[in-house]
Amino acid sequence: TTSPQGLFCSLADFFFEYETPRQVLVRNRRVGVVCRLIQLGVLGYIIGWVFIYEKGYQSTDTAVSSVFTKMKGVGYTNVSGTERVWDVADYVFPPQGDASFVVMTNYIVTESQQMGKCPEVFLSLKRKTLNVSVQGQMTGVCVNATKTCEVLAWCPVEDDHTIPDPPLLMSAENYTLFIKNSITFPLFGVTRSPMLNKTHYYAPYSRKLTAPLCPIFKLGDIVRLSGFSFETIAKVGGAIGIVVDWTCNLDANVKHCKPQYNFHGLYGNPAEPDKAKASVGYNFRYAEHYMENKTQKRTLFKVFGIRLDIIVQSLARKFDIIPTLTAIGSGVGIFGVATVVCDLVLNLKFRFELKLGYNFFNFDQLVQCPSKVCIHVGA
Amino acid sequence: TTSPQGLFCSLADFFFEYETPRQVLVRNRRVGVVCRLIQLGVLGYIIGWVFIYEKGYQSTDTAVSSVFTKMKGVGYTNVSGTERVWDVADYVFPPQGDASFVVMTNYIVTESQQMGKCPEVFLSLKRKTLNVSVQGQMTGVCVNATKTCEVLAWCPVEDDHTIPDPPLLMSAENYTLFIKNSITFPLFGVTRSPMLNKTHYYAPYSRKLTAPLCPIFKLGDIVRLSGFSFETIAKVGGAIGIVVDWTCNLDANVKHCKPQYNFHGLYGNPAEPDKAKASVGYNFRYAEHYMENKTQKRTLFKVFGIRLDIIVQSLARKFDIIPTLTAIGSGVGIFGVATVVCDLVLNLKFRFELKLGYNFFNFDQLVQCPSKVCIHVGA
Amino acid sequence: TTSPQGLFCSLADFFFEYETPRQVLVRNRRVGVVCRLIQLGVLGYIIGWVFIYEKGYQSTDTAVSSVFTKMKGVGYTNVSGTERVWDVADYVFPPQGDASFVVMTNYIVTESQQMGKCPEVFLSLKRKTLNVSVQGQMTGVCVNATKTCEVLAWCPVEDDHTIPDPPLLMSAENYTLFIKNSITFPLFGVTRSPMLNKTHYYAPYSRKLTAPLCPIFKLGDIVRLSGFSFETIAKVGGAIGIVVDWTCNLDANVKHCKPQYNFHGLYGNPAEPDKAKASVGYNFRYAEHYMENKTQKRTLFKVFGIRLDIIVQSLARKFDIIPTLTAIGSGVGIFGVATVVCDLVLNLKFRFELKLGYNFFNFDQLVQCPSKVCIHVGA
Repeated sequence: TTSPQGLFCSLADFFFEYETPRQVLVRNRRVGVVCRLIQLGVLGYIIGWVFIYEKGYQSTDTAVSSVFTKMKGVGYTNVSGTERVWDVADYVFPPQGDASFVVMTNYIVTESQQMGKCPEVFLSLKRKTLNVSVQGQMTGVCVNATKTCEVLAWCPVEDDHTIPDPPLLMSAENYTLFIKNSITFPLFGVTRSPMLNKTHYYAPYSRKLTAPLCPIFKLGDIVRLSGFSFETIAKVGGAIGIVVDWTCNLDANVKHCKPQYNFHGLYGNPAEPDKAKASVGYNFRYAEHYMENKTQKRTLFKVFGIRLDIIVQSLARKFDIIPTLTAIGSGVGIFGVATVVCDLVLNLKFRFELKLGYNFFNFDQLVQCPSKVCIHVGA
Repeated sequence: TTSPQGLFCSLADFFFEYETPRQVLVRNRRVGVVCRLIQLGVLGYIIGWVFIYEKGYQSTDTAVSSVFTKMKGVGYTNVSGTERVWDVADYVFPPQGDASFVVMTNYIVTESQQMGKCPEVFLSLKRKTLNVSVQGQMTGVCVNATKTCEVLAWCPVEDDHTIPDPPLLMSAENYTLFIKNSITFPLFGVTRSPMLNKTHYYAPYSRKLTAPLCPIFKLGDIVRLSGFSFETIAKVGGAIGIVVDWTCNLDANVKHCKPQYNFHGLYGNPAEPDKAKASVGYNFRYAEHYMENKTQKRTLFKVFGIRLDIIVQSLARKFDIIPTLTAIGSGVGIFGVATVVCDLVLNLKFRFELKLGYNFFNFDQLVQCPSKVCIHVGA
Repeated sequence: TTSPQGLFCSLADFFFEYETPRQVLVRNRRVGVVCRLIQLGVLGYIIGWVFIYEKGYQSTDTAVSSVFTKMKGVGYTNVSGTERVWDVADYVFPPQGDASFVVMTNYIVTESQQMGKCPEVFLSLKRKTLNVSVQGQMTGVCVNATKTCEVLAWCPVEDDHTIPDPPLLMSAENYTLFIKNSITFPLFGVTRSPMLNKTHYYAPYSRKLTAPLCPIFKLGDIVRLSGFSFETIAKVGGAIGIVVDWTCNLDANVKHCKPQYNFHGLYGNPAEPDKAKASVGYNFRYAEHYMENKTQKRTLFKVFGIRLDIIVQSLARKFDIIPTLTAIGSGVGIFGVATVVCDLVLNLKFRFELKLGYNFFNFDQLVQCPSKVCIHVGA
């Protein structure tokens, strides 16, 4: 009926009644044990793995971070008697302290180049095409003296066949790198940056390479820890990644949220020789331009150096109700799967036992376990 | 009771008993078919979509990557008889092979500027404020010859009204770009970097632009594939993104984990004219400083160039037990929804049939399907 | 039986039969209310929190983005009578408009340095090691005049004890920064970049700092909004992060997908004094090299400046069937938990009431609620 009180009644029913399936109790040891074990396994998985191991009750966030760097140290070269020192303004590219920069450790200098025509330098590798030069614009003239073609180029053309060995700036080993890094976890509103302590700052360098709050490293240590020999990499150059790892559990005190520093040669693990080969060898060219008696000249440097890429990895975890309930929810779902499995086991048993065809309901027992309908299977 | 054996009994009960709901069997074709179809649909969704299509059984990870670049090629300009070549040290900014850099394709040079007072260059656009100049510090004097104000600036002031057309360095089309890229999936501990093969390295360039293991591209090809005309972009400059896409299924052999290279003009798709307009036009100024008879001078370049941003996208997938069980769990949950729906359908039927008020339980039949309580609805 | 028609029958059974648990109806107000409330709570959580608040029905994606910048404005210095202007080519490092760059606001210049031997400048801080200098290579000679050691270095050695105050380039306050930013959400195939409108572009600057489609900002405003005093940061330098926040709901019209710009001092919140101290002070050195009568000389700049890091944060949400069904699935799972709780409550009641041992099944009532087995608990 749709009369008001009828409506009220059904509403009252909805509120004051509660439905729950009553159970059939199957007293059977084998089935019981199997099912309990399955259920305990599922329960163990949910609590042990999802919650304790995988921390399914936490939500995660990655950080917005910023990194600056500052090198310190002075290099010294003595090439055929002419002494020279190299300071930060000379050996760091680019100068403004980026997260990715190059420290010059070796170089081939070609001084006072100017526009003109001069012979190519002989290349050990055969040119793929006859009329294209990698050194300049070909004029079509051949030079007997050098057995090469004449090119319009910055003359004299750079000759980079012999790389200085030992590297000119072995002193780079003692340079120090200071990493200024700050991160923010927007989701949790947490900002962290290693405390800058002036005394730390001016300390020559920290040998404890994982010192999380005093990130000053010796270049030599960085190279060694990344699995290279300093002399090799200093000679031909190479690339090293410095991974700053901020893995923080923000349910603990935020002051435990400290970075870890890992150093690895880019292009794979130097332990694997083929990859290691690929991983060394990094160079680039740059020029200093100047005017000399109204003609533009330049000093060309082929720079071999250690390229440092500072890569910030971050992962913060904090308790959150959503993933917790989601984990519980799907856990319960899996529990359902276990029950289904048990039913299958059980039904197989029944199919067999019903062959005996025996009285199923035994109402005397209903009083003993009134909330259940009881079945005794077997003895 | 809380006595020891009482405790033991209940513990034994817990272990050796197992509860499962016995079912009421509803023999009714329409309801049966509807429910089976719903359930099959859900099953199909879980297996087909979540598992096969969305790979719900895998966990994902993004990579830590590092990218270096190396341009090769020589440019040649002949401006009013003075020939000049441009090598890597001249046309790449910054020089040290970053993932984001600019290749100069056109320029406006203003030579031997020095501090002084000189008239502004007339701007096509009306100045917003009278006493601020974008060219220098105003002295308050007006110059009749040019009908502009006098400014303290690097004189002569640059006049960039006419952009050289055709671009001075059309030869940039033949430069080659070599992308040195290595990635690491920290979660799965997999590191990949295209094998560097010296013969590849010195090959003029690969025309197969998706060659994953020999990433050497011709600048002209890059521009074309990104949907621009080289001449346009070379004249006024532009920005191109090179997306290196590492989408890897690590359940397969890791050697199938290769990058794909996609090229697209930044600032949207050039197919859409309005966005394309925004997308071209990239320039910046830089100066070469020098001393000439004790006065500081500079050569100012307004550089029009192609800015290349190399963006690494990465996604690795690998089988993982957690997402698998989570997917199963929620799948079972959805299955539960299907059952609820069926009950609704069924209950509606009942409400109707009970009007007939007919004997519900028929105990004779209980022996035939003892594990169930049977109801015959309809004939 | 495995005979064909037997097989057919069981198949037919599978299709035309449907199993559902019949319920025991418990007429009890307290239990009913408790259970309804628990269930309503769970329902409210699933609908209100997971769906409406946490948008559990949407999948998310982060963007691939690219950022370029362009500074405008002219600086003017008048150091002891010698006037000089500074344009973009002079005060931006690096010149090519990267996402992370430095605007020079103050400097210490050391002119016409050349290789040679000269006394160290006295350092306020005690040297950690006697035989290492941070200024050059020590020659072992001591200079009485300055009470310091002689070093081989770029002479004269830079003396950076007194930082110019007020900063030399206070005029930097009026420079304008134009941020050219474009993003792509690969998963949803959406590309967005603020429309570039030439009239906007040449406007002196936008005071509305959150103007999403005209991202031209005054440097002074940026500094103020990041919580610093311009004069302080201009003097000793500092680092400011500009977070471009693209949080988009792509179920709405894509044109509502606009960036928000937030400015904050890096190295934590200047409100906290200790962190603020760490956050100011940013400088680097660079040199301009030139030749003078065949000797290489350089002008060394110690640059104090504002380092701007443009950080793009992005999060797009769009309806997706997978997360929707996953949320429903786990929601149903949690609903199951609620039912389990209710059963516990109920069973406790039963344990008590069964002490009375009273007739449980009342078959007369079965006709009234034939789809259920009824129990009256209490009156």
